[in-house]
Amino acid sequence: MRLKVDLLPRGSYPDVVVLVDVLRGTTNAPILLEAGAKHVYLTPSLKTARQYAQDHNLLLVGERDGMPLEGSNYPASPAELRNRTLDRDVMYMAQSTPQALRNLSEAKHVLLGSFYNARAVVKKAVELAAEEIAIVCTGQDGNETLEDTVCAGFLARRIEKLREVQLLDAARMAMALVRAFPDVQEALLQSSTGQQLQKLRLYEDIAVSSLISQTDRVPKLLDVKLSEDTPVYRFK
Amino acid sequence: MRLKVDLLPRGSYPDVVVLVDVLRGTTNAPILLEAGAKHVYLTPSLKTARQYAQDHNLLLVGERDGMPLEGSNYPASPAELRNRTLDRDVMYMAQSTPQALRNLSEAKHVLLGSFYNARAVVKKAVELAAEEIAIVCTGQDGNETLEDTVCAGFLARRIEKLREVQLLDAARMAMALVRAFPDVQEALLQSSTGQQLQKLRLYEDIAVSSLISQTDRVPKLLDVKLSEDTPVYRFK
Repeated sequence: MRLKVDLLPRGSYPDVVVLVDVLRGTTNAPILLEAGAKHVYLTPSLKTARQYAQDHNLLLVGERDGMPLEGSNYPASPAELRNRTLDRDVMYMAQSTPQALRNLSEAKHVLLGSFYNARAVVKKAVELAAEEIAIVCTGQDGNETLEDTVCAGFLARRIEKLREVQLLDAARMAMALVRAFPDVQEALLQSSTGQQLQKLRLYEDIAVSSLISQTDRVPKLLDVKLSEDTPVYRFK
Repeated sequence: MRLKVDLLPRGSYPDVVVLVDVLRGTTNAPILLEAGAKHVYLTPSLKTARQYAQDHNLLLVGERDGMPLEGSNYPASPAELRNRTLDRDVMYMAQSTPQALRNLSEAKHVLLGSFYNARAVVKKAVELAAEEIAIVCTGQDGNETLEDTVCAGFLARRIEKLREVQLLDAARMAMALVRAFPDVQEALLQSSTGQQLQKLRLYEDIAVSSLISQTDRVPKLLDVKLSEDTPVYRFK
């Protein structure tokens, strides 16, 4: 089986993809499921997100640059969300995650992974994979991010223990990088996104996003609907 | 000053670029200058390379997948080249390096760097830079390579000691990766290209490419000529 790490989304993905956006998209998504949402929806357009949430009676979760988004019920803070109980499905207005989903249309299975659901997402990916697991980092604005790469390496090392895999250099690089951060929180603190969050005093979000294997929830893409030409991704 | 590391060539480069192709393009280039060539030429087309070399009485250096190229005077082996004395300029038929040069047309200064000329290329880059040093890894066939990334991190760490710099995550990542390889030769041995070279029993090439600061030669792009629409890059 091939084990691939893409530091940015690109190329085509024939089999299983684990999408990684540690701060905070793919950390929040399993937390939302655990908090009680049966489904989590993602879409790259804010306008579509608001309209779709209104039409389908969804909770709106999201913020931009640390500021609440108009109409949102909760901020995109893992530290806050994991203490909530939700009674409805959620439209989650994440930033990088839905953009990255556009690149994964050929994949057979798309899972959302992070440190927070590491053990569970690795288990699920290995169960599902026939020929390839691609761990795809969302990056930010087209640039690689430290926290996603370290997380990809972390997941790759665990997969390598379970299955015999062929590796390309990007996977080796990400796996070696984990050795440079024995405390993964350090990678999050040093990253550009982590530094932005620290400026916004969202220290708790970094701490929670560094926790390992806190949940068994693995958001898996169920289907994609088009709403006025914009894809709406439904995860369960 | 900005210090940027690109794990693959992309984007535009306004100021100084240090192009890195450890195995073996940018290791061989300074060795060729030290061995006596006054200029080293690179071009992405083998046909152009042969024709140009013939027209200008240049030595031909190169191979593909460990096999000598038709008409070449020397193989692309740093272990062998560094014991030679050359009395003429060289057309060097490297694989990834000339391809990558196509992406650097906007740069003010293009230098070729590797472990082998680390100290000298860092010094030169810092002298020349006004606003940015971009360390650009050639990668291989569009994939990041372990040896180039570790070398980029190695050079970046040295630059950071000399100048105050702003960093993006890819630079932080490459710099952290160096910590995971206290012996840089280990990164070369683990890399895909390194494994190919080991299959070809070119162990000495890996060893020589891991040596640090063996020469003061820093190949710098002088000019680009077109030969039947193909660029021919001249370095001194």
